[in-house]
Amino acid sequence: MTLPEIAKLGHVALVTPDLEKSLWFFKDVIGLEVTEEKNGTYYLRAWGDFEHHSLSLTAGEKGYVDHIGWRTKRPEDVEGFAQLLEKAGTEVNWIEAGEEAGQGRAIRFKLPSQHSFEIYYDVEKPKADEKRRSVLKNQTYKAWARGCSPRRFDHVNIATSMDVGEILEYLGRQLGFKLREYVRYNEKTTVAGWMSVTPLVHDIAVISRPQAETPNQLHHISYWHDSAQDILRAADILAEAGIKFIGPGKHGVSQAFYLYVCDPGSGCRVELFSGSYLIFEPDWEPVEWTEEDHSIANTYWGETVSDKELNKPTIEA
Amino acid sequence: MTLPEIAKLGHVALVTPDLEKSLWFFKDVIGLEVTEEKNGTYYLRAWGDFEHHSLSLTAGEKGYVDHIGWRTKRPEDVEGFAQLLEKAGTEVNWIEAGEEAGQGRAIRFKLPSQHSFEIYYDVEKPKADEKRRSVLKNQTYKAWARGCSPRRFDHVNIATSMDVGEILEYLGRQLGFKLREYVRYNEKTTVAGWMSVTPLVHDIAVISRPQAETPNQLHHISYWHDSAQDILRAADILAEAGIKFIGPGKHGVSQAFYLYVCDPGSGCRVELFSGSYLIFEPDWEPVEWTEEDHSIANTYWGETVSDKELNKPTIEA
Amino acid sequence: MTLPEIAKLGHVALVTPDLEKSLWFFKDVIGLEVTEEKNGTYYLRAWGDFEHHSLSLTAGEKGYVDHIGWRTKRPEDVEGFAQLLEKAGTEVNWIEAGEEAGQGRAIRFKLPSQHSFEIYYDVEKPKADEKRRSVLKNQTYKAWARGCSPRRFDHVNIATSMDVGEILEYLGRQLGFKLREYVRYNEKTTVAGWMSVTPLVHDIAVISRPQAETPNQLHHISYWHDSAQDILRAADILAEAGIKFIGPGKHGVSQAFYLYVCDPGSGCRVELFSGSYLIFEPDWEPVEWTEEDHSIANTYWGETVSDKELNKPTIEA
Amino acid sequence: MTLPEIAKLGHVALVTPDLEKSLWFFKDVIGLEVTEEKNGTYYLRAWGDFEHHSLSLTAGEKGYVDHIGWRTKRPEDVEGFAQLLEKAGTEVNWIEAGEEAGQGRAIRFKLPSQHSFEIYYDVEKPKADEKRRSVLKNQTYKAWARGCSPRRFDHVNIATSMDVGEILEYLGRQLGFKLREYVRYNEKTTVAGWMSVTPLVHDIAVISRPQAETPNQLHHISYWHDSAQDILRAADILAEAGIKFIGPGKHGVSQAFYLYVCDPGSGCRVELFSGSYLIFEPDWEPVEWTEEDHSIANTYWGETVSDKELNKPTIEA
Repeated sequence: MTLPEIAKLGHVALVTPDLEKSLWFFKDVIGLEVTEEKNGTYYLRAWGDFEHHSLSLTAGEKGYVDHIGWRTKRPEDVEGFAQLLEKAGTEVNWIEAGEEAGQGRAIRFKLPSQHSFEIYYDVEKPKADEKRRSVLKNQTYKAWARGCSPRRFDHVNIATSMDVGEILEYLGRQLGFKLREYVRYNEKTTVAGWMSVTPLVHDIAVISRPQAETPNQLHHISYWHDSAQDILRAADILAEAGIKFIGPGKHGVSQAFYLYVCDPGSGCRVELFSGSYLIFEPDWEPVEWTEEDHSIANTYWGETVSDKELNKPTIEA
Repeated sequence: MTLPEIAKLGHVALVTPDLEKSLWFFKDVIGLEVTEEKNGTYYLRAWGDFEHHSLSLTAGEKGYVDHIGWRTKRPEDVEGFAQLLEKAGTEVNWIEAGEEAGQGRAIRFKLPSQHSFEIYYDVEKPKADEKRRSVLKNQTYKAWARGCSPRRFDHVNIATSMDVGEILEYLGRQLGFKLREYVRYNEKTTVAGWMSVTPLVHDIAVISRPQAETPNQLHHISYWHDSAQDILRAADILAEAGIKFIGPGKHGVSQAFYLYVCDPGSGCRVELFSGSYLIFEPDWEPVEWTEEDHSIANTYWGETVSDKELNKPTIEA
Repeated sequence: MTLPEIAKLGHVALVTPDLEKSLWFFKDVIGLEVTEEKNGTYYLRAWGDFEHHSLSLTAGEKGYVDHIGWRTKRPEDVEGFAQLLEKAGTEVNWIEAGEEAGQGRAIRFKLPSQHSFEIYYDVEKPKADEKRRSVLKNQTYKAWARGCSPRRFDHVNIATSMDVGEILEYLGRQLGFKLREYVRYNEKTTVAGWMSVTPLVHDIAVISRPQAETPNQLHHISYWHDSAQDILRAADILAEAGIKFIGPGKHGVSQAFYLYVCDPGSGCRVELFSGSYLIFEPDWEPVEWTEEDHSIANTYWGETVSDKELNKPTIEA
Repeated sequence: MTLPEIAKLGHVALVTPDLEKSLWFFKDVIGLEVTEEKNGTYYLRAWGDFEHHSLSLTAGEKGYVDHIGWRTKRPEDVEGFAQLLEKAGTEVNWIEAGEEAGQGRAIRFKLPSQHSFEIYYDVEKPKADEKRRSVLKNQTYKAWARGCSPRRFDHVNIATSMDVGEILEYLGRQLGFKLREYVRYNEKTTVAGWMSVTPLVHDIAVISRPQAETPNQLHHISYWHDSAQDILRAADILAEAGIKFIGPGKHGVSQAFYLYVCDPGSGCRVELFSGSYLIFEPDWEPVEWTEEDHSIANTYWGETVSDKELNKPTIEA
């Protein structure tokens, strides 16, 4: 049997105690488009996203990530992952088609760190309303309608109080993620790792947050902009909206030009980023950063996302 | 047996009647780095390329592309492709390790259009000299040393007097390239197609050039810049070097922000580009552009690369 | 007596046969803000303009520029110019305060080429509504609210069937404009000239259009963007709005990075531009471009604004 | 008699204890061009500067600014300023033509804060060597030859232990600078002021540094880049050169997009900046920032130039 494979990151399902404020933030300030509202859940995506949604917003008592959704390469891979995971002793729950708007049958399960993942293949790729549709056949919406206006959903970064190396190993073994870069102290403690199934440096990153109350924390979700200038424009927009943020700056790891901002509704941290590089080499040797060069790994230049900030409690995922 | 797979575009081997001028163009104006000079051949790469070279320059009587090199996913894929191609009646020649500097054993063969391809796996990934090495562990050279300074090699675009649809079909069937976008007239004549094995919209494109004297023409090779602003900077540099170019402009197909310039030594056309989008969807439906929207497919805005230009004889590949 | 002086370009009063379409173009597509509507005239400005308006739109039977408004350095300069002009035999008409919204007493008169100028000093500088006001005390509105979103009004470019040299001489002698750059054929025929009272290369340009039916033609008005990237963003926005334009490109003269687009309501051509340089030298030697280098003077690189385009009938001014 | 007027900032004469390192910094890293070397002093300028030099470097025992040079509007203004200053009790010293390379007769004098100013009119505007000359007749050198490559010299920012308001008042009364923006605490203590004789927000700024050992401190000198992207590129270049810097960020005051870096030879702080706005209004009301909004005045967003940094001893001026 061919091993099942993940093709790409799909979406994040976010729960927020202030749905109105989160909608304002993601729609008006970040500039996402609402694809559908169903049973109180809002489904959003960026102008260059192709799937039904890359973010969903649902009202709840507190802010947390309900699950992170991944799309498989082939339809049969969903069943394939279900079998593999169950064989490994992981509890797998099936989500029926339509339970999540625009999406077919899917499975949900938890990482050893208790982060909740969803795996699906079938998904709608609705066109934009004619008025909002791009004149380009390869682009979903006209760009630049509102707010920061990122092109597409890019990656998730999860934090955990568990051993990061263990989670990275799990993501590699069970789900096929390849390690691209990592920070390791004293040649033994992995502080952070960046992994992907695509040529992006990371579809997912895992970062150590030892003092967290639960092992399943979110560090941030990230949307991608075509140009560094768009990040500077986003900075103007956020400053004028009265929303504090960190950055701009450039990470050494992944070479991302970034800006970090929190959804004032849910507390979910969002990285707006551009730049970075692509890994096409099939024999990529994961880049190791040590304690000695952790500083440049974190910040090549610009405003630092400090350890204090990194370890600040955000929301669970 | 697992089917052999191509991982990525590797390099183009260019022959030039004016080696000195081509070296000036690619090194001083475009800003590539010379990795090695061996037996009169210069091996170059961009500051963000990881392999030994993405371009080689060799003196010859006229300008032409000797071969286009592709790297496989696994070591055994080279032998795998050799068997598959021979089974399909294609003549395969083996190139011994070291014949091309920095590269292991490889095969060469011709497409039905007589374009010469090379397939290899083993390749050196030399570090830059310490003085030129980036302080970033994930970047080969310091950027911005000289000239336009693109980040990495991106794609090749070949032209042919043969039926484009036939070549696209061959690339898909024999080599695993997936069709991403195409222009088709009257629902039957494919004028151009863009294919990839990576999430890039194209690692290779094939364009119709009916009047060409031979079926194996080059349209252009392309290097990628991180930002559109870098393309505008390149325009200044080229204008000051007294080199004419076309652009800047933005293609509808692939959404590439481009500028086209010819190496005055070899006649090889080079596209400097930025922007574009990535395709992560495993069930991507190739985007069809018709005769009606060929204009916007070609030029979303900016200076057009006209049909006249498109059909201008360049060099063989 | 101190000679009266012009401090800056103030505004253009545009008449349009399709007010609704012009409003859509300037407000929604270009992204100007409406300060006031009074007696059917709409007063607009960019987010970084300080005066009451930099453009007014009034319905009329055809598209034309009613007048070009200039602000003086001192209150008494309006009277000063009136006297100087009348002494030189020019008919001067007084416009009472408030006739044009937000503006004090002013004079109007015609150039020898029949272009209508207005000179004023008193003008309101209304703050933006609190909701739209920038958090920066030195910026009128929040930027990036809608459309292309230029920072400020920059210059006017008028065309004439008369001798350009004569008009330039008049602008220098009567109004104090300094010649910054010009194109002269055969050391005698001035084809175009760029003049300013500020360090901008031009507050006004005059271009020859020999076949024009009247001597008082408009070539274009221009709004300024902070960055070249903003012009590329504007190109996307215009293309998506279904509006054709010329560019982007870079002029040799003034080093402007440009894009030319016509208001579909009035036919008024608008240059969106960025870049250029500033002239602080008090003894600036006007830069002469000859017929030989007219091509690079016109287009350093990018899509050319052709002579054909230059001489295309636009609207009267 | 017409009052003498300053037209523009001309240059800064910098003394450095490590001439070789300062030359490396300003020539190779910042990317200035050397116009001339005379009597051990190196004269440099940016590719878009027109005068003989905007910076001179001379070896000395410690790093300090020998003088800040200003160009007058008219030849007779040098004598005019000499008379006015002497009448006001200021000691004026004449510098003979040629004493400073490329420059005519000039005066030198000290502000009440002991900052040394030079005033001149006659200055050479040498063309670049043919090989380095731009193909544009309005641009001195080809851009992008080396390093960060700013376009032109922009402003100086001086610090003082004296009362800032007093120095601003002096600059206005004696030299004609207009106040554009200022920070005032409790409606009485002026902490900083930005002044200009041009439409730039500042040709000179004065900042309070109460603990300084002498009243004549330098805060920084500044070179201007055409685009924010150029500042990000400069950040890469500085990081790769192993030179620490602060930024990027955006000031509220002047809306400058900045990056601050110190010449490792002299200790002179240099601001690389882009953006900002122009003031054409003749009745500009100086923008007041209070203690309450000092934070946003200092940093609209990005890495802050902290008070600690602001008050760090730099070099004398």
